[in-house]
Amino acid sequence: MTEQIDWLTEMTENYKTAHTKSIKLTSSEADVIRLLREHGKLSRSELAKILGYSRASMTTFVSNLIEQGILMQVGEGVSKGGRRPLTLDINGDFGYVVGYDIGATSMDIAISNFRGDILAYRGAPANVRDGATVLLGHCAKIAQVLLAELNANVEQVVSVGVGVPGPVEFARGILIAPPLMPTWENFEIKKFVNQTFPQATVVVDNDVNVMALGEQKTGAGKDAGNFIFVKIGTGIGSGIIVDGKIYRGANGVAGNIGHISVDAHGPICHCGNHGCIEAIAAGPAIAARAQQAASNGSSDILAQRLDEKPEGLTSIDVAEAAAVGDLISIGLIRQSGEKIGSVLAGLVEFFNPELILIGGGVSNIGFDFLSSIRQAVLQRANPLSTRDLRIEYSSLGELAGVTGAIWLTFDYVFGVKVRSKAKL
Amino acid sequence: MTEQIDWLTEMTENYKTAHTKSIKLTSSEADVIRLLREHGKLSRSELAKILGYSRASMTTFVSNLIEQGILMQVGEGVSKGGRRPLTLDINGDFGYVVGYDIGATSMDIAISNFRGDILAYRGAPANVRDGATVLLGHCAKIAQVLLAELNANVEQVVSVGVGVPGPVEFARGILIAPPLMPTWENFEIKKFVNQTFPQATVVVDNDVNVMALGEQKTGAGKDAGNFIFVKIGTGIGSGIIVDGKIYRGANGVAGNIGHISVDAHGPICHCGNHGCIEAIAAGPAIAARAQQAASNGSSDILAQRLDEKPEGLTSIDVAEAAAVGDLISIGLIRQSGEKIGSVLAGLVEFFNPELILIGGGVSNIGFDFLSSIRQAVLQRANPLSTRDLRIEYSSLGELAGVTGAIWLTFDYVFGVKVRSKAKL
Repeated sequence: MTEQIDWLTEMTENYKTAHTKSIKLTSSEADVIRLLREHGKLSRSELAKILGYSRASMTTFVSNLIEQGILMQVGEGVSKGGRRPLTLDINGDFGYVVGYDIGATSMDIAISNFRGDILAYRGAPANVRDGATVLLGHCAKIAQVLLAELNANVEQVVSVGVGVPGPVEFARGILIAPPLMPTWENFEIKKFVNQTFPQATVVVDNDVNVMALGEQKTGAGKDAGNFIFVKIGTGIGSGIIVDGKIYRGANGVAGNIGHISVDAHGPICHCGNHGCIEAIAAGPAIAARAQQAASNGSSDILAQRLDEKPEGLTSIDVAEAAAVGDLISIGLIRQSGEKIGSVLAGLVEFFNPELILIGGGVSNIGFDFLSSIRQAVLQRANPLSTRDLRIEYSSLGELAGVTGAIWLTFDYVFGVKVRSKAKL
Repeated sequence: MTEQIDWLTEMTENYKTAHTKSIKLTSSEADVIRLLREHGKLSRSELAKILGYSRASMTTFVSNLIEQGILMQVGEGVSKGGRRPLTLDINGDFGYVVGYDIGATSMDIAISNFRGDILAYRGAPANVRDGATVLLGHCAKIAQVLLAELNANVEQVVSVGVGVPGPVEFARGILIAPPLMPTWENFEIKKFVNQTFPQATVVVDNDVNVMALGEQKTGAGKDAGNFIFVKIGTGIGSGIIVDGKIYRGANGVAGNIGHISVDAHGPICHCGNHGCIEAIAAGPAIAARAQQAASNGSSDILAQRLDEKPEGLTSIDVAEAAAVGDLISIGLIRQSGEKIGSVLAGLVEFFNPELILIGGGVSNIGFDFLSSIRQAVLQRANPLSTRDLRIEYSSLGELAGVTGAIWLTFDYVFGVKVRSKAKL
């Protein structure tokens, strides 16, 4: 008997859609909100028609949502002969949403209204090795400053989305075996964030996942159901969107492409294997080869830069040298792009995405890089897989992560339907 | 105005769930059927609770479905104190479902009841180069024979699922630029099948996709939400399941992994690139290397087999030679497994599946093959990505394709909710 009740509760949980602390919604009401968020203003009869409810049921749903302050009437739509229908929209003033995007060396914080419009933003340098309490504390301080600038307070924050640079166990919102930030393992991020924002639903995900989501909601990925966001910086990682939603895989580590092998005889990587794409084509690999070219005299421009910067060259130096015509630098950029493109070609065969977006620090290295990636993909992948494929730079830049973090909370405050593969 | 109406119609279409010719369902009714199909018997109150409807609404939905003959009452459930609740299930006798699985050199045909239980099955040799009319005609004849054995007729067939060995444009059910079967391009499979089964909803998909779905519905993938089915035979391909559903990608060619490069300096492939996994590790590559070992005297056992089979060796000869201890054959099998494993390691990093199933002709080559694949994946992929990963042989064997074809139709007769990425 207990067992019978247990699975029933579990299944019911799995079919639930409203996860917020203070808001109780039926799945039909959540559908209404999702649809308005995707589409923008609609009338009651349009909502009823699209979602397949009677006009009467829809009137009830909408009244409940207006009463709770989640929806609002925003004026008249287009008449189809009779009285002009009243259109509805999400009430942006229902509450504030906070997004944190924590990288290995930087943090970005933004506040949006309940429609996802970003009202305030600030970036700051950071070091994840300082530990969770210091870093998340710093994020909270910045968020409070931004809220104060908006004359808002922490009680009005309905949700907080957090992106972190490591593998996340999504359901619990904790990092698992994060290589960049070992001290964060098992740290209860949600609980910590709730100390500052007691009313908020907190959602935590991997940084590249939220960047991909940000592009999908408001950036270059807006019309793309299935795409890959590739972040190239100190490391290489990717976020995967399937059917408009983040794809996380069995252990929350999907998209972890930095250690795909591109050359079995290549240099050894910090992971212990040979020829990982990260060891060959990420920022440090480009910088190391530039350093070599500066030292061995093959590039005068890089040698001159190294004289000015005894602390060492970075991929930005390579970009700048390439921009003034240094052939060695152009070659380094192309090589890196070509290697990344050859890995992406395999992923294109497997995943057949409609779009690949390239972001992260190294993506500022110039258009030779993008061009080399594109060439390598087109050369290797099947023409059918690349027929409609676009490969572009990220459109949201430094806002990709915070935007995604904010929209991530919308999906969870008003439920992406979580269907379980549980033992039914 | 026209524009306004157009998008409304389009969105409404996208939210519709029932696609069958004769059956009209609301999305709530489709939810009930989906849930019963996934879970098996449930009572009205369990259905109401899980799906979040009132008991009264559920009673209405269920009455409609019973009236249409889709559901039936199947006895009493477990009492929680009061009267025992009546449990409901899909009515298996509602109609018959036909599955075709067409391979390059074989065809498999099965008939199931409306619950997906396979009632009759037959396999036959085939050659896709004979063209669509001949091959599909042959399938139809076999299906009619099987129906006659069941005392059933074509009018009782509610749906037909078809798996074909090439890239499918899913919405139209036609093949696009199929390399193995060029004459099938643009052939209207649905229309042709409907000439035999006038009442049936026809759904067409790639053969490996339907095999993956078959395993997901009733085979080794039953509890797996995200997994890859790899078919290794004359070529190498894969089917991808995301969240329990077939993932097709932007052009319906996702999973086309045969031409992922495993060695930039490897042998040239029929696609024009170097070192494709298919050119290195599929059946013909194994057979060619065995042929060589037979000719140059390095394997006596293979040489003896070649004497008996002047038409040439196949991977089956290699398997049999390995089984009697031929070290060269064991080596060939291990090499092939190791190369396939190294490609799968990259896909494991990207996709983080919980399961990889290996099927197709070459999967009968023995457990050395599976073991080599596993070793290569574990050696290359991140421990986090492989923590819960199972790599196994297909459990349904020759029934995987027909099972998947049948279940594919269930998803479309009663709707997988198709959310559009349309220009809203």
